[in-house]
Amino acid sequence: MIFYQMIESETSTFTYILGDESTKEAIIIDSVLETVERDLKLLSEMGLTLKYIVDTHVHADHITGAGEIRKRTGAKTAISAKAEVVCSDIILNDGDELKFGSYTLKAFETPGHTNGCMSFYTEGMIFSGDVLLIRGTGRTDFQHGDPGQMYQSIKQKIFTLPLETKIYPAHDYKGFTYSTVALEKQFNPRIGGERTVEQFIQIMNDLKLAYPKKIDIAVPANKLCGIMPN
Amino acid sequence: MIFYQMIESETSTFTYILGDESTKEAIIIDSVLETVERDLKLLSEMGLTLKYIVDTHVHADHITGAGEIRKRTGAKTAISAKAEVVCSDIILNDGDELKFGSYTLKAFETPGHTNGCMSFYTEGMIFSGDVLLIRGTGRTDFQHGDPGQMYQSIKQKIFTLPLETKIYPAHDYKGFTYSTVALEKQFNPRIGGERTVEQFIQIMNDLKLAYPKKIDIAVPANKLCGIMPN
Repeated sequence: MIFYQMIESETSTFTYILGDESTKEAIIIDSVLETVERDLKLLSEMGLTLKYIVDTHVHADHITGAGEIRKRTGAKTAISAKAEVVCSDIILNDGDELKFGSYTLKAFETPGHTNGCMSFYTEGMIFSGDVLLIRGTGRTDFQHGDPGQMYQSIKQKIFTLPLETKIYPAHDYKGFTYSTVALEKQFNPRIGGERTVEQFIQIMNDLKLAYPKKIDIAVPANKLCGIMPN
Repeated sequence: MIFYQMIESETSTFTYILGDESTKEAIIIDSVLETVERDLKLLSEMGLTLKYIVDTHVHADHITGAGEIRKRTGAKTAISAKAEVVCSDIILNDGDELKFGSYTLKAFETPGHTNGCMSFYTEGMIFSGDVLLIRGTGRTDFQHGDPGQMYQSIKQKIFTLPLETKIYPAHDYKGFTYSTVALEKQFNPRIGGERTVEQFIQIMNDLKLAYPKKIDIAVPANKLCGIMPN
């Protein structure tokens, strides 16, 4: 499989391209409006034809490139039913699959950061969005976030995968690029080891994070697939 | 093979860890002083034992973590003979090999950005330092840089590798994480396609880049393996 990880440095967002090396069909995960040109150029140079534009959730820190990429390529956008993004071409439910060439990307509901978060699995890799980060997790204090749900999502949907499964999140702020189920089960300071759900909820509720800078622009825009009304 | 790419965001430097999954012997390439703690923690969590600390060249934009990592781990530092870093444990010449577990990292002299630049090859990956970047090249106006030499290094040492070889440079400033020989041969705007050596020299000499911010601190420090005299 063709696999490419890109970084949008202002919001430390990872965008991923997955492609079938034979049919050249591709999927993009968590695109960012500001880097759409870069991503489309790379897809073209790699000879890939975009089939699906997937968002792991309604992002609060950046505007998705989904709508703009759809306009430019004709690929179909896809996001969780629970994200309530009515402009999306494909509305995903737990267990749904997106095929690209001979590969399958499988969607899992992993609520907790938002109620409409999904993680996506293919070929030993899980794209965990803002649910499970590298030695961290997404926040749970906005967009119907819920630390109890997040705990169950991570423990039941991600930590049950094979230990060597690679974890590719939507962000990293320390310069890491991936993790594994084994590493997060052992070393995640919030949810690794023997942490109970009560301890995890306490940790999350004690974070007292600043109000997200772009949330009041990004969330409404992302509910419209990143295309603002004129 | 265990492979891990890290990013130091201030100077957009990539640091790489390569490890043997059985013996757990590892190599680190192009470490940065400011991220030594992060890198050592990750090595420890991955259960890896560092054997070699490699620098592709004497960096001008950041101080290497090599000396500090050597002090903390006992691993041996390695850099090109032509880099004239007398504190280095291992002085590399063209074709030299570093073994880690069942893998071999092979050193190639690729001068041009500096006269002591090396690229390193293992398992379908080339670590090209500041010689070949993604859709770009390193600059050639300091540290005995030479665009004619750079042209030959890239054309003869990197572009002769199999087309699918992955290129991992020391930096990227646009959020890309790797390239391939095929992509750079086709799409590198400075040296791809049919560019002649005369055209390449002209392009490089016309760049008129700003004086590197940290060069007067970084180069002397890196000549001392990144450990400043008290």
